[in-house]
Amino acid sequence: MRKWVYTFGNGQSEGSAGERDILGSKGANLAEMASLGLPVPPGATIISPACTWFADHQRHFPESLPKQIDQALAEIERMSGRRFGGVTKPLFLAVRPGSRVPIPGMIEAILNLGLNDETVEALAEETGDRRFAYDCYRRFISSFGDAVMGLDRGYFEDLTEAEMRARGVSLDTDLDAEALIDIVAAMKELIFEEMSEAFPQDPREQLWATISATYQAWLAPRASAYRALHGIPVEWGTALNLQAMVFGNRNAASASGIVLTRNPETGERQLFGDYLPNSQGSELALGERKLYPVSGRAHANSNAGVTSMEAQFPAAYAQLRDVAARLEAHYRDMQDIEFAVDDGRLHVLQARPARRSVKASLRLAVEMVGERLITREEAISRIDPVSLEQLLHPAIDPSVERNVMGTGLPASPGAASGEIVFTSEDAVAAYREGRKVILVRAETSPEDVHGMHVAEGVLTLRGGVTSHAAVVARGMGIPCVAGASGLRIDTAAGTLTGFGVTLEKGDFITIDGSLGQIINGEVPMIQPELSGDFAEIMEWSDAIRRLGVRSNADTPADARGARSFGAEGIGLCRTEHMFFEEGRINVMREMILAEDEDGRRAALAKLLPMQRSDFIELFEIMHGLPVTIRLLDPPLHEFLPKANEDVAETAVAVGMDEDKLRRRIEDMHEFNPMLGHRGCRLAISYPEIAEMQARAIFEAAVKAAESTGAAVVPEIMVPLVSLRSELDYVKAAIDGVARKVAEETGVFLDYLVGTMIELPRAALRGQEIAEAAEFFSFGTNDLTQTTFGISRDDAGGFLTTYKRKGIIEQDPFSSLDFDGVGELIKIASERGRKARNDLKLGICGEHAGDPASIRFCEQTGLDYISCSPFRVPIARLAAAQAVTGLSAR
Amino acid sequence: MRKWVYTFGNGQSEGSAGERDILGSKGANLAEMASLGLPVPPGATIISPACTWFADHQRHFPESLPKQIDQALAEIERMSGRRFGGVTKPLFLAVRPGSRVPIPGMIEAILNLGLNDETVEALAEETGDRRFAYDCYRRFISSFGDAVMGLDRGYFEDLTEAEMRARGVSLDTDLDAEALIDIVAAMKELIFEEMSEAFPQDPREQLWATISATYQAWLAPRASAYRALHGIPVEWGTALNLQAMVFGNRNAASASGIVLTRNPETGERQLFGDYLPNSQGSELALGERKLYPVSGRAHANSNAGVTSMEAQFPAAYAQLRDVAARLEAHYRDMQDIEFAVDDGRLHVLQARPARRSVKASLRLAVEMVGERLITREEAISRIDPVSLEQLLHPAIDPSVERNVMGTGLPASPGAASGEIVFTSEDAVAAYREGRKVILVRAETSPEDVHGMHVAEGVLTLRGGVTSHAAVVARGMGIPCVAGASGLRIDTAAGTLTGFGVTLEKGDFITIDGSLGQIINGEVPMIQPELSGDFAEIMEWSDAIRRLGVRSNADTPADARGARSFGAEGIGLCRTEHMFFEEGRINVMREMILAEDEDGRRAALAKLLPMQRSDFIELFEIMHGLPVTIRLLDPPLHEFLPKANEDVAETAVAVGMDEDKLRRRIEDMHEFNPMLGHRGCRLAISYPEIAEMQARAIFEAAVKAAESTGAAVVPEIMVPLVSLRSELDYVKAAIDGVARKVAEETGVFLDYLVGTMIELPRAALRGQEIAEAAEFFSFGTNDLTQTTFGISRDDAGGFLTTYKRKGIIEQDPFSSLDFDGVGELIKIASERGRKARNDLKLGICGEHAGDPASIRFCEQTGLDYISCSPFRVPIARLAAAQAVTGLSAR
Repeated sequence: MRKWVYTFGNGQSEGSAGERDILGSKGANLAEMASLGLPVPPGATIISPACTWFADHQRHFPESLPKQIDQALAEIERMSGRRFGGVTKPLFLAVRPGSRVPIPGMIEAILNLGLNDETVEALAEETGDRRFAYDCYRRFISSFGDAVMGLDRGYFEDLTEAEMRARGVSLDTDLDAEALIDIVAAMKELIFEEMSEAFPQDPREQLWATISATYQAWLAPRASAYRALHGIPVEWGTALNLQAMVFGNRNAASASGIVLTRNPETGERQLFGDYLPNSQGSELALGERKLYPVSGRAHANSNAGVTSMEAQFPAAYAQLRDVAARLEAHYRDMQDIEFAVDDGRLHVLQARPARRSVKASLRLAVEMVGERLITREEAISRIDPVSLEQLLHPAIDPSVERNVMGTGLPASPGAASGEIVFTSEDAVAAYREGRKVILVRAETSPEDVHGMHVAEGVLTLRGGVTSHAAVVARGMGIPCVAGASGLRIDTAAGTLTGFGVTLEKGDFITIDGSLGQIINGEVPMIQPELSGDFAEIMEWSDAIRRLGVRSNADTPADARGARSFGAEGIGLCRTEHMFFEEGRINVMREMILAEDEDGRRAALAKLLPMQRSDFIELFEIMHGLPVTIRLLDPPLHEFLPKANEDVAETAVAVGMDEDKLRRRIEDMHEFNPMLGHRGCRLAISYPEIAEMQARAIFEAAVKAAESTGAAVVPEIMVPLVSLRSELDYVKAAIDGVARKVAEETGVFLDYLVGTMIELPRAALRGQEIAEAAEFFSFGTNDLTQTTFGISRDDAGGFLTTYKRKGIIEQDPFSSLDFDGVGELIKIASERGRKARNDLKLGICGEHAGDPASIRFCEQTGLDYISCSPFRVPIARLAAAQAVTGLSAR
Repeated sequence: MRKWVYTFGNGQSEGSAGERDILGSKGANLAEMASLGLPVPPGATIISPACTWFADHQRHFPESLPKQIDQALAEIERMSGRRFGGVTKPLFLAVRPGSRVPIPGMIEAILNLGLNDETVEALAEETGDRRFAYDCYRRFISSFGDAVMGLDRGYFEDLTEAEMRARGVSLDTDLDAEALIDIVAAMKELIFEEMSEAFPQDPREQLWATISATYQAWLAPRASAYRALHGIPVEWGTALNLQAMVFGNRNAASASGIVLTRNPETGERQLFGDYLPNSQGSELALGERKLYPVSGRAHANSNAGVTSMEAQFPAAYAQLRDVAARLEAHYRDMQDIEFAVDDGRLHVLQARPARRSVKASLRLAVEMVGERLITREEAISRIDPVSLEQLLHPAIDPSVERNVMGTGLPASPGAASGEIVFTSEDAVAAYREGRKVILVRAETSPEDVHGMHVAEGVLTLRGGVTSHAAVVARGMGIPCVAGASGLRIDTAAGTLTGFGVTLEKGDFITIDGSLGQIINGEVPMIQPELSGDFAEIMEWSDAIRRLGVRSNADTPADARGARSFGAEGIGLCRTEHMFFEEGRINVMREMILAEDEDGRRAALAKLLPMQRSDFIELFEIMHGLPVTIRLLDPPLHEFLPKANEDVAETAVAVGMDEDKLRRRIEDMHEFNPMLGHRGCRLAISYPEIAEMQARAIFEAAVKAAESTGAAVVPEIMVPLVSLRSELDYVKAAIDGVARKVAEETGVFLDYLVGTMIELPRAALRGQEIAEAAEFFSFGTNDLTQTTFGISRDDAGGFLTTYKRKGIIEQDPFSSLDFDGVGELIKIASERGRKARNDLKLGICGEHAGDPASIRFCEQTGLDYISCSPFRVPIARLAAAQAVTGLSAR
């Protein structure tokens, strides 16, 4: 006969923390605490397989269940010294469902089960407080009526309110015993009328009805939909906890409270929490009554010392302090403890890991290592890597009220304030005058990069979290709110409108790129701090992780930022951004618009010294660390002007007939530029471009080696390869330039030539491509685009629908699609290493900053990951967690 | 000791036709003919491994080679009764390289090797013709000087011309013996001066120098580059044939000629060819002298009977007739025979399969089966499937001179003449007046489909062979020349300019879509003929092939065409084309522009009867055959107007504010529509669209089953799936409609729901997708686009460069990329069948009409291929060849 019910209490339990799968997390926790001898009210857990049995057997209960429940009740009666349904010392139950993971739509706790017209009087007698007894009865009927019998809670609230009106009181706490007795009567009558069924007086009937309702809720559509979406099998079922009631609201010697074992903001070790004398736990959350601090030292509140639990309930407080210490030591984590004091006696109702700020997480982790509670491996596992991002950017002072005028997607974290500008030109002009700006655009294009460089933050009305604005902003480490479709730009009027507010150019706004909020006006900020506990955790992570962590960096500012965050090199330098700078873009256009190779070479000769100086600076900043430079990647038409007036200006600048320029621009139009004439295809059509870039790289490497004294080993990356012959062709051009530069300078450099693996074909042909490539860098953005056939610039709309309809759980551009894109990465890695067993493997797509994706990279045996500078600390931590296999999530 | 030299002659050979790998194709053929006892001048072949040995050993010859060559020469001397270098009856050699496959840049034949100052006199004496002897000497020196010694042929030609000027003659045949003796002396002097080396007098030295030069040429850059591009290993080497010279120019009883064993145009059995008395074979090609027919009956020429070889050389002719019959019987194929008559005696110099027209191929194949020379399997292997296309379309009368005014890409085969129109509206207007038009556009878009429907042909200035115009034209079976970038349209003036010719709207042009030519004016056409031999070959193919052959067909016209070409069903019906028709497009736009689902449903209700009647017609035409219908695939913005005036018109038609319409169009813009909101993504965002289409399909199936009496089993295809959950979602909607229609009509239909596999992720996840899909249809166009990351609309430019630079051999959109895309197809097939072993597998991309790709489909075990109607015969034949493993190429 299967055991369906596990009891706990009085220092013993039939279950334990390890049996979460059948006890549910709450039940497992109660069992564990009882075993520790903590003052847990005695109880029993009906394990989740009973729920599964119910589902599998036409909603019948297992035959042996009633008897086992009876036995458990007898045991609870024994431990509590009370009787369920008894007219003296009656036992009441708190009944709480608890599955392995929380599911919305489940029944909430039902308290005071067992109250009926008789036991209520017994309770009144025992406590000498009829008002208290009937208040409990009233609460029980309404929650039972709602959750178990299915009569909306509103009906019951109406009855109470009618009574309050009738008696002329404004708080239900002002209702006296008579009034509550009336309400109870009215509630029972209401149930009978509405449900054609009496409120059950038999406590066992109450209990069975509750068990049945809980199982039904587990199987109901709302829970099913949630489970389907999150891949939770219905067979998990839900466990159900029956526990002897204790009353924090019994009398003046009673209280309810919640306490944390450390300060959740700072992580400091102290009892931190609130309590409320003579109350039930649920009242703490209502906010109707003033709460008091648990500890006398915990709050700034001046009379805390007087009203604190420490002062008012010294014995219970001492016991609580002891409980807190024991729970922390046992669970080796900061705890969030619900407790009640019932007539002076402390009861622990629940304990779980406490929510805490990132700062607190770090301090806690470091201190617990000091306290020898946890190892360094465990310490780093306690931090959610993504949460670190909060520490790396300025954030809005949490004490300030936010005047939100619109929301968009949280596209690049951090917050910033500045004057509104609508064009990149205005951004540059304001920047020169020393003013701070937020660049507001319908959407951005590469032409806006110089404006983004000088802006504090970027706000766009269109595009998703992988739109141009979002990607570039993340790379630059400036906040971005993207796709704020509720706002409108009126270009003619020069205004931005949202939530009925219209702002003009020059007005101040603030964006919160972590939350996606747009706030009217300027607000105070808190600046990041990267020493102390943060630095300690980073150091420990570095010691543990196997994966190298590099950064994507295009500019000296990026590179410096990357080093300060601990990057071990540059994994992706996108050379195209360098050509958008003022003073360069028109030379670039000259090159693009040249009639023939000679014309192109003439313009390239002007670009060469610019590129070379870019690279010298990068090599110097990163000195001693590897730098991977990608050859020009975007289609050339991206460098041409789009707006009408820009075309006219450009025509003058490059000395070309305007009509002719328009025709050229039109001729270069592509239907699908993402799949167009870009990447290595440019280097094959115009090898002179790749040659210029290779020359700039090699000459810069020679110079930087001279100036820093450290050898530079540039890694040249050929983008968008799908055929080995493409790589062969471009590599031959690079090697040719290397030989020439060596002859000219007398310096023979080491260098690597490798390729991005960002097309499915390249992944499949990994073996033959690796014969020519010295490294692979997985460009997971483009690889995701082509594997799924989804343009990230156009996906915002339908991917949102996909999430809403449960087609996908996660945006594949945010977290790597292991099944599809991941298989291609594995194929490419295996095949590549077959050809060249020391092939260096890295990843440089957006996913390199995502912990789940980093775990995949660790498992797949990549050598390094390269993410945007501000993701470097996240990546360092996540890479360490990937090694230990432990993580917060 | 390895045998390096194989002799042949006098009815015996040391080699045979099977040893092409070492003898080269020419050597193998000579050996075979000699074995047959045909009058082949005796000779020897130095096998290609000797060349490989030379390459592998610092360009030295194998030690045993000289001795073997000496022995071979002795044997040739014995068989010819002459002596190499002899002063009486001297033996001269024709030396010809011949590798397994022909390589450009190799040395041409060197004739008369062995001539020197002594043997020339011996030849003069023997023939009694000094002029003849010195003419041979002159020719030998110049070809030896050029090919072996490396002195440009131009120098030698200059000398002859100088002599002609000095002697006042205008043809070199007018030079007398004295003059030729002078030229020979001058040539030898020239060589000595220019090369500081005397022209070698020793025949053996001449021979060794020639062997060495041939091997060097095999290893030279030009041949290497060609081999690299065509994947020919250098180790193949080249063989070298030494053969006793015979002289068709010895005297009046001598001649040279080329004869085919059948008429190359019609395939009729007759000796067909030309000869030239007293000439060397090379003179036939020069066209300086009038040629005479071989057979007395063969030509229309009135005095052919008198001047023919049959009349002039009756004995040699009889012998030739016999040789021709024996060669045909032996090789079981039509032969192209080079021969010489030396002093009345016939010699066969070479025989190889003859080039022939498609018509001739078909007749030949059918007749040879009748003659029991070949089997039906062999017969079908003799036809190049692609060549059939010439028979399926009207073609320009070959006797007409073409006034070509420009060229583009041959994008859809066949030829057509018509008046120039520049817009689809003008095309429709002209069509209504009964005029034939050629639609000329910069490029076409789906909005042009109605214009293309009524046009005789389409000419575009931009785009490649897979551009919209090309794909749609091929589907419709009308000719198309695409990407004619040398032409210019002046929209304002309404003119088309090319090659200095300017034509106006209404002027006639002709396009040849098979050659990519644009021809000024109207030209006479030849119409296709599909019975007789063609029908026979098709029938035999059908009996042999395993693959089903379906057609892609969107319209009743397509469907009828497909059936007439023998399609066994529709493998892809693209429903979107139906919405571009007049009277529908605006309803479609109403649907797209609707504010909410209700609005969409209202417009869809109007589209439903239209779709239903489309499908009824298709089902009726194809009755008894399967029809696969793809749900709406293109992004919705493709249906919206683009041109300014169209927007205004549409605003009126759908009753929408014009500015608002413009904003909506702008909002719907996509950066990469190929990767955008299309395919099943539409059905997930707007399930009501898929529901309407499913309803139209099911209701039509019920009706068509009633009207034809044959059950209709529609196959509904969900496009652009990358996740199983997408297919689940759409399939649920389809199944829901099926149930409703069954309830409403009382008819329970069988139907299949399957998916296009056109994204790499879908291929990789083939197993889980097949759990939900009843068939896979590989959409190899999109699969190629995403696997390579190449937009076919934008690829024209750089793929041309790729071919030119040898990066790719074949456009992956024309012939399937087996290595990349092919691997994905294999993966999907294997994994799909793992989940569902009766999963139906087909292919519906452009590749389904390409023989090499069809071979791949056969090998991969697909069930059917579906190509455009005009490719159906090609596919039937190619599918049969794929089974036999025999093909013409």
